[in-house]
Amino acid sequence: MSKGVTKQTEDYAKWYTDVVLKGELADYGPVKGTMVIRPYGYALWENIRDIADRMFKETGHVNAYFPMFIPKSFMSREAAHVEGFAKECAVVTHYRLKQNPHGEGVIVDPDAKLEEELIIRPTSETIIWSMYKKWINSYRDLPLLINQWANIVRWEMRTRLFLRTTEFLWQEGHTAHASAGEAEEEALRMIDVYRQIAEDYLAIPVYVGQKTEAEKFAGAVRTYAIEAMMGDMKALQAGTSHYLGQNFAKAFDVTFLNKENQQEYVYATSWGVSTRLVGAVIMAHGDDKGMIMPPKVAPYQVVIVPIWRSDDQKSAGLAKVAEISADLQKAGVRLFVDDNEQVSPGWKFNQWEMKGVPLRMEIGPKDLEKEQAVLVRRDNGEKQFIAFAQLVTTAVEMLETLQSDMFKRALEFRNRNTFEVKSYDELKEVVDKGGFASGWWAGSSADEELIQTETKATVRCIPFEQPGGTGKCLYTGKPADKIAIFGKAY
Amino acid sequence: MSKGVTKQTEDYAKWYTDVVLKGELADYGPVKGTMVIRPYGYALWENIRDIADRMFKETGHVNAYFPMFIPKSFMSREAAHVEGFAKECAVVTHYRLKQNPHGEGVIVDPDAKLEEELIIRPTSETIIWSMYKKWINSYRDLPLLINQWANIVRWEMRTRLFLRTTEFLWQEGHTAHASAGEAEEEALRMIDVYRQIAEDYLAIPVYVGQKTEAEKFAGAVRTYAIEAMMGDMKALQAGTSHYLGQNFAKAFDVTFLNKENQQEYVYATSWGVSTRLVGAVIMAHGDDKGMIMPPKVAPYQVVIVPIWRSDDQKSAGLAKVAEISADLQKAGVRLFVDDNEQVSPGWKFNQWEMKGVPLRMEIGPKDLEKEQAVLVRRDNGEKQFIAFAQLVTTAVEMLETLQSDMFKRALEFRNRNTFEVKSYDELKEVVDKGGFASGWWAGSSADEELIQTETKATVRCIPFEQPGGTGKCLYTGKPADKIAIFGKAY
Repeated sequence: MSKGVTKQTEDYAKWYTDVVLKGELADYGPVKGTMVIRPYGYALWENIRDIADRMFKETGHVNAYFPMFIPKSFMSREAAHVEGFAKECAVVTHYRLKQNPHGEGVIVDPDAKLEEELIIRPTSETIIWSMYKKWINSYRDLPLLINQWANIVRWEMRTRLFLRTTEFLWQEGHTAHASAGEAEEEALRMIDVYRQIAEDYLAIPVYVGQKTEAEKFAGAVRTYAIEAMMGDMKALQAGTSHYLGQNFAKAFDVTFLNKENQQEYVYATSWGVSTRLVGAVIMAHGDDKGMIMPPKVAPYQVVIVPIWRSDDQKSAGLAKVAEISADLQKAGVRLFVDDNEQVSPGWKFNQWEMKGVPLRMEIGPKDLEKEQAVLVRRDNGEKQFIAFAQLVTTAVEMLETLQSDMFKRALEFRNRNTFEVKSYDELKEVVDKGGFASGWWAGSSADEELIQTETKATVRCIPFEQPGGTGKCLYTGKPADKIAIFGKAY
Repeated sequence: MSKGVTKQTEDYAKWYTDVVLKGELADYGPVKGTMVIRPYGYALWENIRDIADRMFKETGHVNAYFPMFIPKSFMSREAAHVEGFAKECAVVTHYRLKQNPHGEGVIVDPDAKLEEELIIRPTSETIIWSMYKKWINSYRDLPLLINQWANIVRWEMRTRLFLRTTEFLWQEGHTAHASAGEAEEEALRMIDVYRQIAEDYLAIPVYVGQKTEAEKFAGAVRTYAIEAMMGDMKALQAGTSHYLGQNFAKAFDVTFLNKENQQEYVYATSWGVSTRLVGAVIMAHGDDKGMIMPPKVAPYQVVIVPIWRSDDQKSAGLAKVAEISADLQKAGVRLFVDDNEQVSPGWKFNQWEMKGVPLRMEIGPKDLEKEQAVLVRRDNGEKQFIAFAQLVTTAVEMLETLQSDMFKRALEFRNRNTFEVKSYDELKEVVDKGGFASGWWAGSSADEELIQTETKATVRCIPFEQPGGTGKCLYTGKPADKIAIFGKAY
């Protein structure tokens, strides 16, 4: 199946693709830029999705489903929005095929041309606000807190599995509020939910902050983001939450009768995370052996590899493994027993290390005699012999430790590679050798563009956590009251 | 919000649409034929989905996700398949919009025309088998048991909320096997899983059987279906499972090395249920007041309506309701407390009856004094006064009884309206006045077509449960060894 993955230091991009393909997380679809999410990758996404879905419901949101077809005319209702998305839209123009009258196969039936072309949603603000117009009349209908899990299409030229594909899966929250303050609060609440998902479940530390004007969402007043550092020290935007003000309410004429009995435009937010998070998990934690799954979202938290030489050993071993599996499952542990006889234990070890299962449990004939099993941590290779009686408790504890160690390691890595810079030269030096640059910033969108052209780095965010006080802008030298984080980004 | 729904006897189609719209289950999307699934309808779908997903996993299946874009050429690989689906395909021809150079808004950029047009999946056999070709090499790779939850597009001219819309949500299982027998077994296993979902969870009795040649899936060797009777005595196909033989393996050249070391084409199944099941629930159980939700899938199983006149009564009432709610939730009951002060209790009763919440709990000042609550069953209006101490146990029991009573009622209704017919005249009489006709059948596809043209009825299925023996075909008079169920269908 695989001979391991390319070394990170040799070719990080190749390492990433190897992990995705050889780890059977995803595969290329037949249409350029599309991706098939294979069962192992999808299981990870399901776990992330379930956690997020629970958190959305706990914060008062409900799920719904809106059509993926958006009338072309909707796209141009909001000026910034169409500017941001028109260039990457899949367009449906016909609704029928027919037999090719002049040859083999089928052709598009020219008689089945749509009067108005349809866009496949690149995001759903426009279609959702066209419905909110029907549903919202008074302040009593607010807030409206809806989320949807859906597929999205953005026609990308340079694609990369999980990180940037023509079609991807995501959730998009779209909320409507009676006041700017309440909507702003919602946008901030949701970026913090995303921070929790990243840090507490995916073990990925993130900078949480505001996007600059140049980097905000097409149609937003303000965009908040969580930004993570990958293993190659590049940044990955892992989730965004937008305060949309009244932009979409105005574009779709959505007003409500407020408590003062006056018609007022509704205030909005939207927020989303996508299958990109799978890419984030791979690149935040992986090593030269492959992936490392954070236990809280790992499809399998433990893989049990029984080892035997004789038939007697085999039946005794498998019986014990069945017993242990049942106990572990009772304790809520997700596990896989690899009793495949076609391949050697060594091959299995490599395979499951590549796939990133957090804990490996080996049980051989000698272990059976000694009433113990071997537990091996994927993240640091640490090996322990644990008596059967302590196995479940120890495994559960080790998974917890592993989860928090993964976060600590990623945090140390990020902090070690985030540098305070005082000048543009220092910034260039940092992004050249790899890492985030943090410095006082009072530049304009034009300044950002110049920096990006020269260094490929962008402002990832203006973090909420600020040192306080003021300083000199690293680029313009003007007085600045905020520091910004710069980095090259995926 | 609503003045109730049209009476079923007055206009069944209008009743259905009223229930969907006024019950806030769904709404019409801006593009003709599309549907928005609103939170209340989506919550029902989520419950159905979770049950189905668990049963798929228990039977060894895993989830994955395949792209929705299918190259046009894939569609014509399997002859029957293209015949069945080409007429209703949404076709993507371009990948970019641009500002209209001659006026307002955006136009499709003629320079962004795709070399090969893309079809949005009407079902995913073709794209999935194009991937299976890459993944399947040997019998060791089999069986491959994959399911996906996805949106689907079939360009329908006459649409109806939940029952037939241009885009809908569904799951589609696509399995690959090393033998015909194993694949056949899988197809039968899954139709039985669907029967369980319908009968044990949705409380809808179904005829389980095989489709005729005329009615089978485009590309299948055999199609199995579950067929339900709706409140207007029409049939609804609620789920199908197909034994595909080697048709798609041949179309996409998917072979495997069998145990005899020979290359052989892979055997396939596919099976699906969709958001149509929501329509089935509405029409199998609803009455003139609106919907009746089967407790096992109801978004809210209990609605609590506290009633008060004074502020003292209010605070005492709400305190008690909070206590009861907590106890009910601890017992696993999904509930909603309707303490809205804008509307009267009577209005709330009507509203929640329309939305079909199985149990209503009323708690007024007198009830508080007597330490009791009123429990009202949605299905039969039965009202009981229950002491607080017994409330949780009684509510849980009543939900169970209600669930099984709903099934019994639907079963009696179907059996009462299924008639044995011995001749074509009798068949016509039955389908004319409404109901299923059951009779010996040995007709051809041409015969079926004639019957459909004259009566609008079709063979819904050849049920697995047969009386045994032989009889005279009701239409051709030829000897027949199977009975068939006829009915007008959605």
